[in-house]
Amino acid sequence: MLAGLQAVMDPTEIVGIVNTGDDTDLHGLHISPDLDTITYTLSGVANPVTGWGITGDTFRALEALERFGAVTWFRLGDADLATHLYRTGRIRDGATLSEVTAEISRAFRLAMSLLPMSDDPVRTRLRLEDGREVAFQEYFVKMRHSVVVEHVRFAGAELAKPAPGVLATLESAEVIVVAPSNPVVSIGPILAVPGVASVLQARRDSVVAVSPIVAGAALKGPADRLLVELGGEASAVGVARFLRAWVGTLVIDDADDGLADEVRAAGLNCVVAPTVMRTPERAAALARVVLGVTVDLGRSHDASASPGA
Amino acid sequence: MLAGLQAVMDPTEIVGIVNTGDDTDLHGLHISPDLDTITYTLSGVANPVTGWGITGDTFRALEALERFGAVTWFRLGDADLATHLYRTGRIRDGATLSEVTAEISRAFRLAMSLLPMSDDPVRTRLRLEDGREVAFQEYFVKMRHSVVVEHVRFAGAELAKPAPGVLATLESAEVIVVAPSNPVVSIGPILAVPGVASVLQARRDSVVAVSPIVAGAALKGPADRLLVELGGEASAVGVARFLRAWVGTLVIDDADDGLADEVRAAGLNCVVAPTVMRTPERAAALARVVLGVTVDLGRSHDASASPGA
Repeated sequence: MLAGLQAVMDPTEIVGIVNTGDDTDLHGLHISPDLDTITYTLSGVANPVTGWGITGDTFRALEALERFGAVTWFRLGDADLATHLYRTGRIRDGATLSEVTAEISRAFRLAMSLLPMSDDPVRTRLRLEDGREVAFQEYFVKMRHSVVVEHVRFAGAELAKPAPGVLATLESAEVIVVAPSNPVVSIGPILAVPGVASVLQARRDSVVAVSPIVAGAALKGPADRLLVELGGEASAVGVARFLRAWVGTLVIDDADDGLADEVRAAGLNCVVAPTVMRTPERAAALARVVLGVTVDLGRSHDASASPGA
Repeated sequence: MLAGLQAVMDPTEIVGIVNTGDDTDLHGLHISPDLDTITYTLSGVANPVTGWGITGDTFRALEALERFGAVTWFRLGDADLATHLYRTGRIRDGATLSEVTAEISRAFRLAMSLLPMSDDPVRTRLRLEDGREVAFQEYFVKMRHSVVVEHVRFAGAELAKPAPGVLATLESAEVIVVAPSNPVVSIGPILAVPGVASVLQARRDSVVAVSPIVAGAALKGPADRLLVELGGEASAVGVARFLRAWVGTLVIDDADDGLADEVRAAGLNCVVAPTVMRTPERAAALARVVLGVTVDLGRSHDASASPGA
């Protein structure tokens, strides 16, 4: 979504507010998978096949970790490791996650700004059917999200402060775009950071989300199952109901044309458009639609996006 | 030296007490260069050309770190990184350096035991001619030890406790071998750990050192210059004077035959033998000499070694 927006507007006007509830500490490293995937994607080094990591990366360090019986299900490539090493070293030296994120963005020559939702640790934890509570990466990567979730919480959120610039960006942005991400575990953590939800509520008319559920299924990941497991509905209507307190307009896919009235009945504006970003051109077209919605609402093309996983 | 001892006696009877004053924190990692070099050497994976790291290692992560302008003069190979990642992760989880060292030794299938001199941080710091104080790795690796040192201290040593087993090993070992290491920066930190020097003093008759200075020059590293810069002499006699409080016998090289009387005048027994361990056979032969010394003194072949860098 950010790549699409970047293609149709001045990228220096874009601020990406990124979920850090997926962050994990592994081998002593501070790993921020969402920040990294966005950085790698925007800079063109992302591995398009896996959806994570750096294209052409090697796994020498990870292979060598096997000798110690260490966790190796979280696949850390050698070049990818450098990002985590740099972040971890800077944080141990006293830098905040925001500061390191800006440095990493500069190193990858991103034109837009990325902000972590918070500099404080917030960790998404999922209680499974069997009563166990697991960290997000254990659920998402190790278990390949093939388990039933009973409850989700964002540990540390109540004590977390929004990172510098987050609230100011949301207060002043001409458009706030909620990317087509998992509402529960990618948008949810951002909403859980104190102050974010109330700003969005106040600015609801300027908030445009794209449904991550198309024709009743998540395009990727477990968004559809999570919505159902937590008492909602795996559809654009379920997404509308989940987000309606904070989102004024929902963009749903052509395939869900028949659900537009139900979305409106949930209290949101509804725009129907092709939302599946198979190519950069499709992403740019969707970005134009998203920004066009707000033109219809009498606003200009400046945008801020809150992407998730 | 440890490899030589291992070749001529039951390796399970050897305990290596290792300098950790060279340890460094880089990119958030806990790096223990002396422990690692010994582990890699004993397990046969050490790079014989560089004297550090793992043979055939790649440097993908390090190359990727250049993007961030991070420190890259400390060359971390990808497979080598795994050792630091494992150690760091375990220490962050609450393990002691001793515990992790034992785990790493097992992973590399070492037959002998390695003990860090202390589980507490001790950091060798060198004050240079220009008044600046630098950490050991900055001096040794970044500056390639081509600077004049005015003073050496072991920060944290006064508060450090010997690691579990260190004093008991020194108290009960039949022979204590001081490897031919830099007396100032490799043996010095071990001596600075409270309790070590007094045990060695008490057991001085069982302590055999091999001079790292041959024909007035260090076989490798800056031992010769450091001895002179700190007011001593770059010779086997200088080594004898530096170590005489704790070492009963000094083995000096055939090339230094003419210095034997001066070593004895310094108050040590002196044994002249080939000490340059060019091959495993030479190392084994030297080990036999070192152990033979103590046979002459009426002791048996059980040995403990305190190697340095």
